[in-house]
Amino acid sequence: MLSKNKQKHITALGRKKIRDQEKLFVAEGQKLVLDLLQSDLNCQYLIVDEKWISTQSSLNTDVEIIKTSSDSIKKVSGFKSTPSIIGVFEQNSHRLEMNTLKNQLCLFLDDIQDPGNLGTIIRLADWFGIKSVICSKACADVYNPKTIQSTMGAIARIQTHYVETLPFFEEYKSLNCPVYGTFLDGKNLYQEELNNNGLIIMGNEGKGIQDKLEPYVSSRLFIPNYPPEVATSESLNVSVATAIICAEFRRRLG
Amino acid sequence: MLSKNKQKHITALGRKKIRDQEKLFVAEGQKLVLDLLQSDLNCQYLIVDEKWISTQSSLNTDVEIIKTSSDSIKKVSGFKSTPSIIGVFEQNSHRLEMNTLKNQLCLFLDDIQDPGNLGTIIRLADWFGIKSVICSKACADVYNPKTIQSTMGAIARIQTHYVETLPFFEEYKSLNCPVYGTFLDGKNLYQEELNNNGLIIMGNEGKGIQDKLEPYVSSRLFIPNYPPEVATSESLNVSVATAIICAEFRRRLG
Repeated sequence: MLSKNKQKHITALGRKKIRDQEKLFVAEGQKLVLDLLQSDLNCQYLIVDEKWISTQSSLNTDVEIIKTSSDSIKKVSGFKSTPSIIGVFEQNSHRLEMNTLKNQLCLFLDDIQDPGNLGTIIRLADWFGIKSVICSKACADVYNPKTIQSTMGAIARIQTHYVETLPFFEEYKSLNCPVYGTFLDGKNLYQEELNNNGLIIMGNEGKGIQDKLEPYVSSRLFIPNYPPEVATSESLNVSVATAIICAEFRRRLG
Repeated sequence: MLSKNKQKHITALGRKKIRDQEKLFVAEGQKLVLDLLQSDLNCQYLIVDEKWISTQSSLNTDVEIIKTSSDSIKKVSGFKSTPSIIGVFEQNSHRLEMNTLKNQLCLFLDDIQDPGNLGTIIRLADWFGIKSVICSKACADVYNPKTIQSTMGAIARIQTHYVETLPFFEEYKSLNCPVYGTFLDGKNLYQEELNNNGLIIMGNEGKGIQDKLEPYVSSRLFIPNYPPEVATSESLNVSVATAIICAEFRRRLG
């Protein structure tokens, strides 16, 4: 039985303020929740469809399991189609240690607004072995249910940090690492030197990289369109652009 | 004034059945609608916020313009934040000529379900000079408002075709062009031969490429993760994977 209190709790976790206070987030759906249960994240409790669970051999976990009807799950789910399982997990908290960034390739997300884009970027960062994703405070929330969904479980493996943009860049500068940014007037990605460490800035969906960050950029990159002389779409979706750039950094190491 | 009839018309165009019957679609928002007005697509009529239009020097078009209140636009808009302009456009209709595919690099989308992914793929196809996107009948609708939004205007420049999957592949086979697919057990994308022409199959978000298409695939590709020996996310988002593959095809020509 899903108590009124638990119902209220899950619904309340739909709000960033409450997620921040409680340091919790909600994950929905079989694949995602089962993946997260295998991860280092702590699960507070699970809500499962009583019919679905009866068909499962075992849910190998000592987490509290609340069995309830599909109708009750529907009331608290943010999905169109009611999931068979919902999990409430503790947020990962990592201290940002600037020194550890020195030898890594990291991403800096400059006001990425769309939770789907943010989640997709976290998922591809995981694919390309990028361990730290630094977000400006104006970015979407990594614990937004849509972000969580788009990460497909990668949220458990990537360290995300929210920072004040300029102080972060001032501090990062002292590491003497390259800083890459994509610009429509940048240089051909495939002809530029790319390092194994450094920071790749990805700009906001509509506005690109903020002017005030440009002085910190040591290498201005451009993803060449094809054929070069033909006017095409003005730009690429930000998660798509991030993917192409990260893939190229990693290809060079291959 | 927005008549009741026009209100009903726009709302009805939210349904695929009606869009198919009338061969029309709805685009919302200033940037997208103004882009589409510059394109080859015919616009049937525009609905504009009367306050917004009074601040515009001119809307350089001879299309019927219906001025109305922001509140009226809100009633017919599918957006969270009410746009200042909505346009009703005629769908592009292109006959699929197999012969013209012979010398092109094309995409085949195998049951791509998410309209956002579909739109993002159309947008990146435009960036990489891929003119034809062939969709299986089970793909999302290119004229779904979310797809249109994600294409960011590229819908006007890309030819999309819905086909019966197996008959299409049978016919494509006779062109003797390479067929590429991505598979988790495929070969390193960066070490395989890639042609200037051929068909790239991208599989469904959850299931990948259907088994029945495998016999048609001449080259099985894999986007290497990094570092290669570490288990990461199982896969990449389909629009992200499409982007990395298309970028690599085009890089080879650069």
